Amino acid sequence: MTKKWTAEKITLGVCYYPEHWPEELWEDDFQRMKELGFTYVRMGEFAWTIFEPEEGIYSFDLFDWAIEKAHNLGLKTVLGTPTATPPAWLTHKYPDVLNVSQSGIPYQHGARRHYNYNSENYRRLSSVIVTEMAKHYNTNPGVVGWQIDNELNCEIDVFYSEADHLAFRKWAKEKYKTLDHLNKAWGTVFWNQTYTSWDQVYLTRTTVPNSPNPHQMLDEKRFISDSAISYAKMQGDIIRKYTNNQWVTTNGMFKHLDNHKLTNEVLDFYAYDSYPNFGRVLEDKSEKPLRDRKWSWNLSVVRSISPNFAIFEQQSGPGGWVTRLEQPSPNPGQLRLWTYQSIAHGADLVMYFRWRTATKGTEIYWHGINDYHNLPNRRIKEVEQVSKEIQLIGEKIVGASYQAEIAIVNNYDNEWDGEFDKWSGPFTSISKDAWFKALQYNHVPVDAYNLNRNSNVEEMKKYKVLVYSHAAIVSEQTADLLKEYVNQGGQLILGCRTGYKDETGQTYMKAFPGYLAELTGITVEDFTREAPFEATPKIIYQEKTEIKTTNFYEVLKIEADNAEVLGKYSDCYFEGKPGLVKRKYGEGTCYYFGGVFTIELAEKLIEETQINDYKNNFDLPESVELSIRKKEEKDFVFLLNYSNQPQEIDVKQEMTDILTGEKVYQKVSLKGYDVLVLE
Amino acid sequence: MTKKWTAEKITLGVCYYPEHWPEELWEDDFQRMKELGFTYVRMGEFAWTIFEPEEGIYSFDLFDWAIEKAHNLGLKTVLGTPTATPPAWLTHKYPDVLNVSQSGIPYQHGARRHYNYNSENYRRLSSVIVTEMAKHYNTNPGVVGWQIDNELNCEIDVFYSEADHLAFRKWAKEKYKTLDHLNKAWGTVFWNQTYTSWDQVYLTRTTVPNSPNPHQMLDEKRFISDSAISYAKMQGDIIRKYTNNQWVTTNGMFKHLDNHKLTNEVLDFYAYDSYPNFGRVLEDKSEKPLRDRKWSWNLSVVRSISPNFAIFEQQSGPGGWVTRLEQPSPNPGQLRLWTYQSIAHGADLVMYFRWRTATKGTEIYWHGINDYHNLPNRRIKEVEQVSKEIQLIGEKIVGASYQAEIAIVNNYDNEWDGEFDKWSGPFTSISKDAWFKALQYNHVPVDAYNLNRNSNVEEMKKYKVLVYSHAAIVSEQTADLLKEYVNQGGQLILGCRTGYKDETGQTYMKAFPGYLAELTGITVEDFTREAPFEATPKIIYQEKTEIKTTNFYEVLKIEADNAEVLGKYSDCYFEGKPGLVKRKYGEGTCYYFGGVFTIELAEKLIEETQINDYKNNFDLPESVELSIRKKEEKDFVFLLNYSNQPQEIDVKQEMTDILTGEKVYQKVSLKGYDVLVLE
Amino acid sequence: MTKKWTAEKITLGVCYYPEHWPEELWEDDFQRMKELGFTYVRMGEFAWTIFEPEEGIYSFDLFDWAIEKAHNLGLKTVLGTPTATPPAWLTHKYPDVLNVSQSGIPYQHGARRHYNYNSENYRRLSSVIVTEMAKHYNTNPGVVGWQIDNELNCEIDVFYSEADHLAFRKWAKEKYKTLDHLNKAWGTVFWNQTYTSWDQVYLTRTTVPNSPNPHQMLDEKRFISDSAISYAKMQGDIIRKYTNNQWVTTNGMFKHLDNHKLTNEVLDFYAYDSYPNFGRVLEDKSEKPLRDRKWSWNLSVVRSISPNFAIFEQQSGPGGWVTRLEQPSPNPGQLRLWTYQSIAHGADLVMYFRWRTATKGTEIYWHGINDYHNLPNRRIKEVEQVSKEIQLIGEKIVGASYQAEIAIVNNYDNEWDGEFDKWSGPFTSISKDAWFKALQYNHVPVDAYNLNRNSNVEEMKKYKVLVYSHAAIVSEQTADLLKEYVNQGGQLILGCRTGYKDETGQTYMKAFPGYLAELTGITVEDFTREAPFEATPKIIYQEKTEIKTTNFYEVLKIEADNAEVLGKYSDCYFEGKPGLVKRKYGEGTCYYFGGVFTIELAEKLIEETQINDYKNNFDLPESVELSIRKKEEKDFVFLLNYSNQPQEIDVKQEMTDILTGEKVYQKVSLKGYDVLVLE
Repeated sequence: MTKKWTAEKITLGVCYYPEHWPEELWEDDFQRMKELGFTYVRMGEFAWTIFEPEEGIYSFDLFDWAIEKAHNLGLKTVLGTPTATPPAWLTHKYPDVLNVSQSGIPYQHGARRHYNYNSENYRRLSSVIVTEMAKHYNTNPGVVGWQIDNELNCEIDVFYSEADHLAFRKWAKEKYKTLDHLNKAWGTVFWNQTYTSWDQVYLTRTTVPNSPNPHQMLDEKRFISDSAISYAKMQGDIIRKYTNNQWVTTNGMFKHLDNHKLTNEVLDFYAYDSYPNFGRVLEDKSEKPLRDRKWSWNLSVVRSISPNFAIFEQQSGPGGWVTRLEQPSPNPGQLRLWTYQSIAHGADLVMYFRWRTATKGTEIYWHGINDYHNLPNRRIKEVEQVSKEIQLIGEKIVGASYQAEIAIVNNYDNEWDGEFDKWSGPFTSISKDAWFKALQYNHVPVDAYNLNRNSNVEEMKKYKVLVYSHAAIVSEQTADLLKEYVNQGGQLILGCRTGYKDETGQTYMKAFPGYLAELTGITVEDFTREAPFEATPKIIYQEKTEIKTTNFYEVLKIEADNAEVLGKYSDCYFEGKPGLVKRKYGEGTCYYFGGVFTIELAEKLIEETQINDYKNNFDLPESVELSIRKKEEKDFVFLLNYSNQPQEIDVKQEMTDILTGEKVYQKVSLKGYDVLVLE
Repeated sequence: MTKKWTAEKITLGVCYYPEHWPEELWEDDFQRMKELGFTYVRMGEFAWTIFEPEEGIYSFDLFDWAIEKAHNLGLKTVLGTPTATPPAWLTHKYPDVLNVSQSGIPYQHGARRHYNYNSENYRRLSSVIVTEMAKHYNTNPGVVGWQIDNELNCEIDVFYSEADHLAFRKWAKEKYKTLDHLNKAWGTVFWNQTYTSWDQVYLTRTTVPNSPNPHQMLDEKRFISDSAISYAKMQGDIIRKYTNNQWVTTNGMFKHLDNHKLTNEVLDFYAYDSYPNFGRVLEDKSEKPLRDRKWSWNLSVVRSISPNFAIFEQQSGPGGWVTRLEQPSPNPGQLRLWTYQSIAHGADLVMYFRWRTATKGTEIYWHGINDYHNLPNRRIKEVEQVSKEIQLIGEKIVGASYQAEIAIVNNYDNEWDGEFDKWSGPFTSISKDAWFKALQYNHVPVDAYNLNRNSNVEEMKKYKVLVYSHAAIVSEQTADLLKEYVNQGGQLILGCRTGYKDETGQTYMKAFPGYLAELTGITVEDFTREAPFEATPKIIYQEKTEIKTTNFYEVLKIEADNAEVLGKYSDCYFEGKPGLVKRKYGEGTCYYFGGVFTIELAEKLIEETQINDYKNNFDLPESVELSIRKKEEKDFVFLLNYSNQPQEIDVKQEMTDILTGEKVYQKVSLKGYDVLVLE
Repeated sequence: MTKKWTAEKITLGVCYYPEHWPEELWEDDFQRMKELGFTYVRMGEFAWTIFEPEEGIYSFDLFDWAIEKAHNLGLKTVLGTPTATPPAWLTHKYPDVLNVSQSGIPYQHGARRHYNYNSENYRRLSSVIVTEMAKHYNTNPGVVGWQIDNELNCEIDVFYSEADHLAFRKWAKEKYKTLDHLNKAWGTVFWNQTYTSWDQVYLTRTTVPNSPNPHQMLDEKRFISDSAISYAKMQGDIIRKYTNNQWVTTNGMFKHLDNHKLTNEVLDFYAYDSYPNFGRVLEDKSEKPLRDRKWSWNLSVVRSISPNFAIFEQQSGPGGWVTRLEQPSPNPGQLRLWTYQSIAHGADLVMYFRWRTATKGTEIYWHGINDYHNLPNRRIKEVEQVSKEIQLIGEKIVGASYQAEIAIVNNYDNEWDGEFDKWSGPFTSISKDAWFKALQYNHVPVDAYNLNRNSNVEEMKKYKVLVYSHAAIVSEQTADLLKEYVNQGGQLILGCRTGYKDETGQTYMKAFPGYLAELTGITVEDFTREAPFEATPKIIYQEKTEIKTTNFYEVLKIEADNAEVLGKYSDCYFEGKPGLVKRKYGEGTCYYFGGVFTIELAEKLIEETQINDYKNNFDLPESVELSIRKKEEKDFVFLLNYSNQPQEIDVKQEMTDILTGEKVYQKVSLKGYDVLVLE
């Protein structure tokens, strides 16, 4: 799986901040972690001032001591580099290290992540502290790995300091070589934006009325990602230079960052911070919201980066900052459920965030497994149970791969371009959501597949079906790849707004879907958005079923002889025109839908593409998630009940509950929030 | 109509940006315009860097070539001065040219309209480029007229650069001569705002809590208007100095700009950019919203500036920027309908925006009549049909005048004062909307009438009825004018909040409605706003009909013997008191309503004032608009169906459909979005 | 009551701005005030430029004249120091006096309250003008008292000028002596915020993502309060130094200001500006909103500062600035009702704001008792009636004390901490609102009690019941005080989230409710917030009544033998667990509710604590407020009808209507908005 991280079994751990607590608590804290069966403890991120109380003065005593105490009890330490929170002495002496808002207001000391990636001072000072730490801990037997910084691009994912503007100019120069190329790529002839000298080039700035050049904006996000990666690489390189057996990772997953590239270039594997409790409080006006279960999609995306991964922060209780993000306590059973959700999706290490609720600062309501008062509570008891179970099954399952025959395609260019573009971006998230729900509610395991410059047909052929809903940007090369995937037997599902842009985010002078017209066998003859105060069209599927539609409508024109109309529009001026077309191409099939997907339509296409082969094994109610991890030809089946009510399931062949060792066959009842792991 | 613009027939045209496209497309593009029957093409605005790639270096090749190509095919070029989008080299070298937010944040290069009107550098550099262009194109036979800048005050209509503050100080000094006069006009004795030195005087600035002096704010808007006009005049004067037969205009209509004064002082006629499609997506919570038909009011206001005008940008398809304003595609028939909407209201030239959808930049979703791909589409076909029809009827109708017996009164002082004043401004827009709807739905053609210092009774007498709903500011002179209008036979309709302010926006120490008390025959004895959580009063009209009310209530006290109570309040503490009073004065009548107008009440007053004399000619359903243009005693009747459903109309006398030549009598069915032009 | 303010009878007065009006109006204005029976007139605040037209040049003529005219007619002048609105010459010459937004944008001249309390220049210039005024008016027989500034902390209650940052650093240094103490108090070890040098210490600044350190934020509010008090004290000291018989006060009551400390350290008594009309327009989504009657709570808080107080601004008509806060006209009777509301709650002087509606400036819609036009109106008539009545009863009631057996507890630390903390602050306002409504609707007079470092049991014992709903911050000392209160017979009612924080706002490492666990006889064994999309639990009160709950749930664990479960949870995972516990302690009782109070639950506890002893005297409908002021063993009973409908009341013992002298017994009808004062 990864270069240096070879887990021998799935284990648990916890995030711990010894510096927050009186020294006299440490021994007992580590002792209790041990007793809980934890193996890993994460420490050190956010502790720069402790490591370097004054510029150039270093102090390792506190963590040396803590790491040693942990080590003596058999706990492995993951050490964080402390760069997410620069010291007050640093930002005060070097204000150029601060991140700055687009309109020029610097973000000051007082919270976290207020630095920028491109300040020379910050790079230098970061490099110094990481070097000192790496040199100090390189042979420490307690330290098994490193976390670079903390949650890159969290809280804020745009950067407009002077250093960023200058670095962007340099980045653009390297990318485009000449201003002429840059002017072409950014379409600056529109609205007279042509640059005639490099010193006129900036990151997007305050414009009238807050509508910067969209192609520049796309490059800005590529630049932010590159900046973060290069900053992380600087740290990773230092750690690798001074250490041998300690692995390197960081914890994500935030916007404007190509986590795949980051992982390839800098990390041994990828770690994620999983907070499904957000799902209980975030507004979700979509049909049949998934709530906490939505995190299964996030975990699927993480899996596309590292097939097996670690959770560095697993929700431990009620959550929230002092002023925002307030979440209730997990109901009894939910902490356990969410831990299994992580493991079911590929996590081989889960660390709870955090050992004990902070008694001070912005996060006093991000509760740990222990409360402020340190007295026993039900969360600790629940974690204790999980820990015992994981000790039982952890060795068996470790390294097993998640099984999926269908993948929803992600692509950074389209994600970043779509974030700004109301004519494609919003449709992508609606359709992904509809597809993921349809697959979840029908118990079809699904992967995320990241399409990028390194993608190849071999990799893609792993999936019988790929859903790439509204990929505005499709280069000729990508179109060829997708054609070849279908040609070799793949089933590709596309939605409206596909293929009309090139990699600069400019539109082709071609009929939609651009380079994919040949594969799809259609072109788009007319299109319109949903008019907010007018009736919406419907799709008549297979001449029978009337399906509601939303958002966008492309009227398709059949261009290929073998293109088959699966759905026609109704109740609109393009009544009777094709809206959903299937076309066999080589060994495979391509489906083009001229609209935005709904759960109902996705379900039709799930049937059509015949990927649900677990229906024969289980009969499952909607609120139960099915995940399967496979190792050496053995399937481990996770059945997770997200409802607070008992659910009846039907296991059609005899299997074994590996948590109890009991045989399971036919009707079984799964309690509210309960979990079943079968083999 | 105008000095130099004498259209021989109504014609069509298109906006074209040759610089966006490969040169090899131009010939074909112009050829196709020609084939479509277009006569005009607009070019050049937004092309400053092409005309002046470096400061002082000029280049006309591109446009020389394009204009010549167009000319050779018989297309007349309207040339835009390119000042709406300064070059990067300019804003980078002269940052003082930038507009700045009230709190001091400059608007940077990257979009458009980020300059200010008062920077000396910008005036100088604008004057140089306009001079160079005027000198270069003054005898070019292809160039028939000029568009100054583009959409003055669009996107942003406030200006707070250093140059603006200084110019405002100068403007105030010229207006008030002494600080004592300024202090009086701005009521600075309130809250100790008294200025004791001119250098303390600024445009409004950031205040606690965002509530600047309202009288200063009113002057600020007058200043912004004067700044824009003086900037446009600077350009107009240059063009006129160097050219002979080319007319000068600009395209509007945006806030904080006295378009009438602008037109009188600078332009040959006024041009408008018409986007009725906005009406389909903008939130409109009012009763019976007009949607796209609302643009008929905008066109009426344009007509009050230029009785016959041009549309320089007529919606051509789906619209929207990358990030906002997203609109669906016009339904089949709507592009045609909207073109006739413009013509029915007085347009003698209509140019579509734009020839081809931009493939780059912020406006890639402001679709042209051609798509990115340049392949045939239904919009082109629809424009083709319109073009053939206009070629048929354009000569007949050109120059004909819109006919209306009633006008809704506009006044810049009240518009600007009311924008900031929650005790009059919001009522004005509600009442205008109600009146316009009542008139539209009852097929009573209506004008906008701009009341200003040049207004006179002769001009006003053209209208049997004037509706001036909530004119807070009424000077003694204006009051005299309105009295004389009524005295000579006019019917004047006033609403609550009339006449209580002078021209500084300060209140009179007089009973309401101030100088209009004599004419109206009433004073206001008590008043109140609608209390949001309490029941609203009703008006009992003519002792019979109960009419709902909203927003504001003035209890009227009868002061003149011949004042007649038409409506009394009910269901409130002022139960039975007069709310609507009619008073004969001289040859005419004045109606005073102590509230805010509703459609229902406006309909009662339409009956009362007996202006609907087309009822004998037609029987029309609500969704059909009636407009009449008259030339040499001949009426051209436009019937426009804004509904997507067929509508039955009844033509009571035989007429001729001038698009088909067929006779029309009695029942006729008008298809969805269809248009009938009768004579 | 107060040192120098000994009212001989309750009287009325009015705020007057002679500088706004032509001199020729003054005599008549004062004459009419006299005729209306007014005794007091407030003048001078906002007139700095008149007193000091240029720096160091003073001019007292205008006010000398006005004060003399008033005095000659027997009107007593309250003089305002004019520091709420610095002159243009001042802010222009000394821009450091301006307040500044957190992100660094200065608030400029043009409105009011744009200065900061800590600028040395502003302190010096304020001190000079106050000294000059005090010296000039110290023996003026017309001037009876002073108002310092105007509405401290109104409009804006945060301050981030350079002077404030520096003063805060000094304040923190004085408070904490060492950085180590400050670091501990602010919990800076969290997120590496540790300060290593004093010059790194600022007020909160712009952070990512707008979440400053909460403990620093709490200190920031304490600092703002101290700054305002020290600024007011500077003025008060000057006035006292130069005057003898003139009292000193200011008018409040705004946020981030310890009005009790201010009054103790600086004022002779406290004055309030009462605008119940706001209650008619402010959004209030709570159950059974109180609207204008909500102001009775504000008046109760004022009473906790000064048992008898003055109203310096009593609503006089429709209200609103040009751009916001727009309110309808008071209905006939409401001005009178609201005046009695003030008096019923302890006001011994009521001044109407203002004499005449301003004809200029931001407040042209804050109507005075006279309209712009100065003609008679119904408001004047109503005030005339009130004035006659007050002249009749004013001597009898003056100085009488409001009677209440229950108090709702206020505490500045918790108010300031809770403002920022979503896990306690919002619950406090919801519960106070519920309690106040339950008490109002059940006719139980209630006080506000301010708990602070000077509180003592003697003072608290005045109340049979104290309700301290969600006091997050409870020090050991406060806990002891509350225990002693109960021990001596008090009944204390606590809600969830009690006692878990210390005075820095950090959490204790103790079971909840911290130092109050002993008194309450419970600890909190589990808790959760309301999950927005899930069902809410219920409380079963006394095993019988099902009561709805909201927001927060603490599962209580019985720790004391005599703790009695009054309510259990239902419909949740903690079904059947205690949620409401009663515990006898010493002579008294403590009630702990693990949730947020509703009207319904508060009503149950009102019954339980048996405080409603007026039920035997009156039978009152919900919309009538009962207030009682007592003097020398005589009760003055105010019955105020907030409804516009007549209300039937039942007076169970014969009493006298002191406004009419008539006997009142058994059924009486109170007209809409009417008032009955009985003895």
